[in-house]
Amino acid sequence: MDKINQAIYTIRPLDERAMAEARRRQANLTKPQGALGQLESLSVQVAGIRGDSRPQITHKVIFTLAGDHGVTQKGVSAYPSEVTPQMVYNFLRGGAAINVLARQVGARVIVADLGVASILERHPQLKDKKVGLGTGNMAEGPAMSREEAIRSIEAGMELVEEELTRGIDILGTGDMGIGNTTPSTAITAALTGADVAIVTGRGTGLDEEGWNRKKKVIQKAMDINQPNPGDPIDVLSKVGGFEIGGIVGLILAGARYRIPVVIDGFISGAAALIAASLAPQIKPYLIASHQSAEAGHKKILEQLGLMPLLNLNMRLGEGTGAALGIFLVESSLKILNEMATFAEAGVSEKT
Amino acid sequence: MDKINQAIYTIRPLDERAMAEARRRQANLTKPQGALGQLESLSVQVAGIRGDSRPQITHKVIFTLAGDHGVTQKGVSAYPSEVTPQMVYNFLRGGAAINVLARQVGARVIVADLGVASILERHPQLKDKKVGLGTGNMAEGPAMSREEAIRSIEAGMELVEEELTRGIDILGTGDMGIGNTTPSTAITAALTGADVAIVTGRGTGLDEEGWNRKKKVIQKAMDINQPNPGDPIDVLSKVGGFEIGGIVGLILAGARYRIPVVIDGFISGAAALIAASLAPQIKPYLIASHQSAEAGHKKILEQLGLMPLLNLNMRLGEGTGAALGIFLVESSLKILNEMATFAEAGVSEKT
Repeated sequence: MDKINQAIYTIRPLDERAMAEARRRQANLTKPQGALGQLESLSVQVAGIRGDSRPQITHKVIFTLAGDHGVTQKGVSAYPSEVTPQMVYNFLRGGAAINVLARQVGARVIVADLGVASILERHPQLKDKKVGLGTGNMAEGPAMSREEAIRSIEAGMELVEEELTRGIDILGTGDMGIGNTTPSTAITAALTGADVAIVTGRGTGLDEEGWNRKKKVIQKAMDINQPNPGDPIDVLSKVGGFEIGGIVGLILAGARYRIPVVIDGFISGAAALIAASLAPQIKPYLIASHQSAEAGHKKILEQLGLMPLLNLNMRLGEGTGAALGIFLVESSLKILNEMATFAEAGVSEKT
Repeated sequence: MDKINQAIYTIRPLDERAMAEARRRQANLTKPQGALGQLESLSVQVAGIRGDSRPQITHKVIFTLAGDHGVTQKGVSAYPSEVTPQMVYNFLRGGAAINVLARQVGARVIVADLGVASILERHPQLKDKKVGLGTGNMAEGPAMSREEAIRSIEAGMELVEEELTRGIDILGTGDMGIGNTTPSTAITAALTGADVAIVTGRGTGLDEEGWNRKKKVIQKAMDINQPNPGDPIDVLSKVGGFEIGGIVGLILAGARYRIPVVIDGFISGAAALIAASLAPQIKPYLIASHQSAEAGHKKILEQLGLMPLLNLNMRLGEGTGAALGIFLVESSLKILNEMATFAEAGVSEKT
């Protein structure tokens, strides 16, 4: 927990001077003030995060963290657990959606095993941060111990730190874990106070019967475990997941090292809720890439005060939304850095 | 009008076979079916437009059409008319927002003078399609003659045809014209039946007084001209603009040559309303890039049945929204073309 606390105490507010300078420049570019909407405010936010009034993005990194969930025994997912490791291999071969979109935006993908329920083959591109062989079934008891919850967060922080030497100017979060909308829903209910029935979605594609079963399983997990909303580590350990804890660590480390953190969808959003409960000062470091089709995600974004950049009805995870979000952040910085000012272009200003 | 009618009669429905094949492939890719939301449906739409189940996009072209508006005499814009030619030169030097975003997405920008109110310096990158030296003041009479309206549409069609030899796999629409939210609002009111007061926005940044003046001017233009909603050319000539007519031509030619047409914001949306009134069969060729901050744009998208990809509170025009939309269309096609199937990746399917 020392590592986590140290990061939390190191997180600073955004650099107001860099933001003021970026705002001033935006006002002098050849367009009506504010006409690029969120593309303008994004550039100002990133200036504040980086402490640089004209930040450049060279190194883009998307972290895709994998873990399994004991609760899948209860039939909460349309897919079997074996798909988690199969998809990890797919990521390593470059055939998944996240690989395609990361290539398009020029980001590297870091794949890490936080807690897949089987021993994975070694691979030079696979980071081994396994905390356990899948979580326990949260419908029957805690998903993990408090120590494991802390370890998963620290593992996520380590992933960011290990990439610092190669460079990270922006990071995107991502997840893979069959069944992980179930713990994410429980986390959302615990930390927003929302009713389980309202924030439970259909995940990868449950039918009506499966959906009702999922709601009951989540309610049971809440009743048995009584996660304490005042103690986010307690929530993570009782109704969370290893990859979710890992994403909490990515977020804390991002804020600690002044890196803009582009949040993916529902799973990453649940992790952001935990991170913001641990350290509310991380919020200005977050950029919400998209609003997921998952029911609970809207609630999360509201609670975090985030405006999603995209609303494409996506619900895949892996970091796919984050990849598209990184592209838009880059758009905002190119606007800030490359557009001509009124004076440079000889264009008349507002009358 | 022959050229326009010929295009209209040549427009075909989308290729159902290519769409079915694209849908089949999407269902076999390593993700839950539908999990990429609009990125999946976009790829199917483009397959249908191109008549190719795995279409590739190489040549991306954004057309930025400029024109002036006599109605600016009435104080309907926060900027003076001289900004229109100044911005054209800015486009040609590469310093405007559209240049920055087009570079980011790898699109070429075609800048054309459809009706700027001054004689522009010749430039190898500037297409001269001038229909007139700015429109007439629509608050006092028709903006242009019926012949000029037809000529402006034909000029837009010519722009597309002239680029065909260099290649166009996707096209984006864009505009520049101080005052042009005023005719666009009038067109929206005429063709959707909406109240002028409801669909009038603040354009590039009017204050309360300017906004009220703008509403009155538009209402006056409607009362004096009585544009006939059953005759879209009449609407364009009475309360339109030369660059708006040009964009109508871009859209008709796009559909005629089976090119996906990515619509920018409010001005392009007004042009799309006219195009869809002339030829409803163009609708499946349209992709709405974003929802503008301009009040009337939502109404336009509803009437056309289009779901915008982005909602970033942008209101700049030039084709800036279209550039971002082109990026997302490319994302959708890369997903379709580059992702591994369940069989290729050895991933288990839904139980």
